[in-house]
Amino acid sequence: MQEVKLGLEALKAFLDAEFPQVAEEFEILSVAPMRLRVALRVSERHLRPGGTVSGPTMFALADVGVYLAVLAMVGPKALAVTTSCSIDFMRKPPADKDLLADVEVLKLGRVLAVGDVRIFARGAEERPVARASLTYSIP
Amino acid sequence: MQEVKLGLEALKAFLDAEFPQVAEEFEILSVAPMRLRVALRVSERHLRPGGTVSGPTMFALADVGVYLAVLAMVGPKALAVTTSCSIDFMRKPPADKDLLADVEVLKLGRVLAVGDVRIFARGAEERPVARASLTYSIP
Amino acid sequence: MQEVKLGLEALKAFLDAEFPQVAEEFEILSVAPMRLRVALRVSERHLRPGGTVSGPTMFALADVGVYLAVLAMVGPKALAVTTSCSIDFMRKPPADKDLLADVEVLKLGRVLAVGDVRIFARGAEERPVARASLTYSIP
Amino acid sequence: MQEVKLGLEALKAFLDAEFPQVAEEFEILSVAPMRLRVALRVSERHLRPGGTVSGPTMFALADVGVYLAVLAMVGPKALAVTTSCSIDFMRKPPADKDLLADVEVLKLGRVLAVGDVRIFARGAEERPVARASLTYSIP
Repeated sequence: MQEVKLGLEALKAFLDAEFPQVAEEFEILSVAPMRLRVALRVSERHLRPGGTVSGPTMFALADVGVYLAVLAMVGPKALAVTTSCSIDFMRKPPADKDLLADVEVLKLGRVLAVGDVRIFARGAEERPVARASLTYSIP
Repeated sequence: MQEVKLGLEALKAFLDAEFPQVAEEFEILSVAPMRLRVALRVSERHLRPGGTVSGPTMFALADVGVYLAVLAMVGPKALAVTTSCSIDFMRKPPADKDLLADVEVLKLGRVLAVGDVRIFARGAEERPVARASLTYSIP
Repeated sequence: MQEVKLGLEALKAFLDAEFPQVAEEFEILSVAPMRLRVALRVSERHLRPGGTVSGPTMFALADVGVYLAVLAMVGPKALAVTTSCSIDFMRKPPADKDLLADVEVLKLGRVLAVGDVRIFARGAEERPVARASLTYSIP
Repeated sequence: MQEVKLGLEALKAFLDAEFPQVAEEFEILSVAPMRLRVALRVSERHLRPGGTVSGPTMFALADVGVYLAVLAMVGPKALAVTTSCSIDFMRKPPADKDLLADVEVLKLGRVLAVGDVRIFARGAEERPVARASLTYSIP
């Protein structure tokens, strides 16, 4: 099993540097080899009328999650780029709970990495609101 | 061939009502049976460091595009919900051009609609920056 | 948690009846609420030159797996239809090992079911050769 | 616009050599820069009970189509490998018509190629039975 090259504090610093416009929205909760958990602090800007978190917001959460999980494994040398994503929206997330994303890196190749994400509302892990798979190319 | 139930002006009114937080970012350019073109007015908030439009922004453009194209066909009675999306990011979009999304509705069933989207920078239609397919459920 | 409506023996009978052309290729190993494991007995017809299991074969395994997992939960009354699939091929499967598919049903709605699949060679669970997500419509 | 490196006859020879088990099922109809049309000769083995072409068969058609379209552009030097596919099944194909796949290569990069596919029954082009997008890695 490969080891983590960037730990929790180093990742937080990277998030601040790479995604300054959105860094405050996300909170990295834990990192382990090939795994990472990140939370989205849901606020007004993420909501759709009707009181549910928007699709693009959940996409952004999955995207950031896999980016960070890959970065944790390959270290700060690489700037990975998303090449594809498939996402299923399965339930309406509540507007008053933060969202958690559990990321698992399934493949960490020389040129491609694949990550799997389950998104759920805090406190309701057994009923995911979305799942996503993302491929990153590693230049 | 089914006819359009909501024309350009009616769609613009709907966009303002349904997506008030983002309506100003999008400009519906044309609508025809099963087809729609919408532009994203790219601004600072859509960019990543390095000067490229972010993935979530392109996802949002594809999502809004299919939503509007389905709405144009089924009329204002239904509030469709995205159930899934697959998206491929193929080239880096320039930061200084608006993005256009060409939407084609491939299926308009009783419960599911499928739309296909090509996204490209204004003036460079032959080199799409992304493609996406979205499924909407029609309640 | 919902209970299984069709157990292992009932599912095997259904597989024989519904997919007679391919039933002998698959072996249902276990079934539990929202989960199922099925094996593909790899033979000459599944291989590509170079000695690896073909993509369509892995697609078929994922498709059958989710079909059976949904059937186990909803019972024999419904004939579900695949509406979409996203699949990532991550490693070359060896030609001389059977493939296992671990299926988890993430959503079991009134009209749509979503299943997640990990495929791996027997004895190498920690290195999946493919992952897939499938949506079934339940008429 | 890049030119075709392998024309119709050269592609047919490649199909026979690379996919000997399935070559007789497919008929390459035309090839042009970044575009290709291929037919599947539907027979008993492709059908599901109820008289419709199986999902894995349509997946195989899309997969072969993009493989051939990429090969036409890059020439015989490379053996591309499918890394991912998203496919939407939109209508039931009739059992008594051959299926046609129209392939468009949207990206032909140094390491990744992306192809888009529309599948329809011969004579019913305006109502696609499926659409698919596939990514191939080019070693």
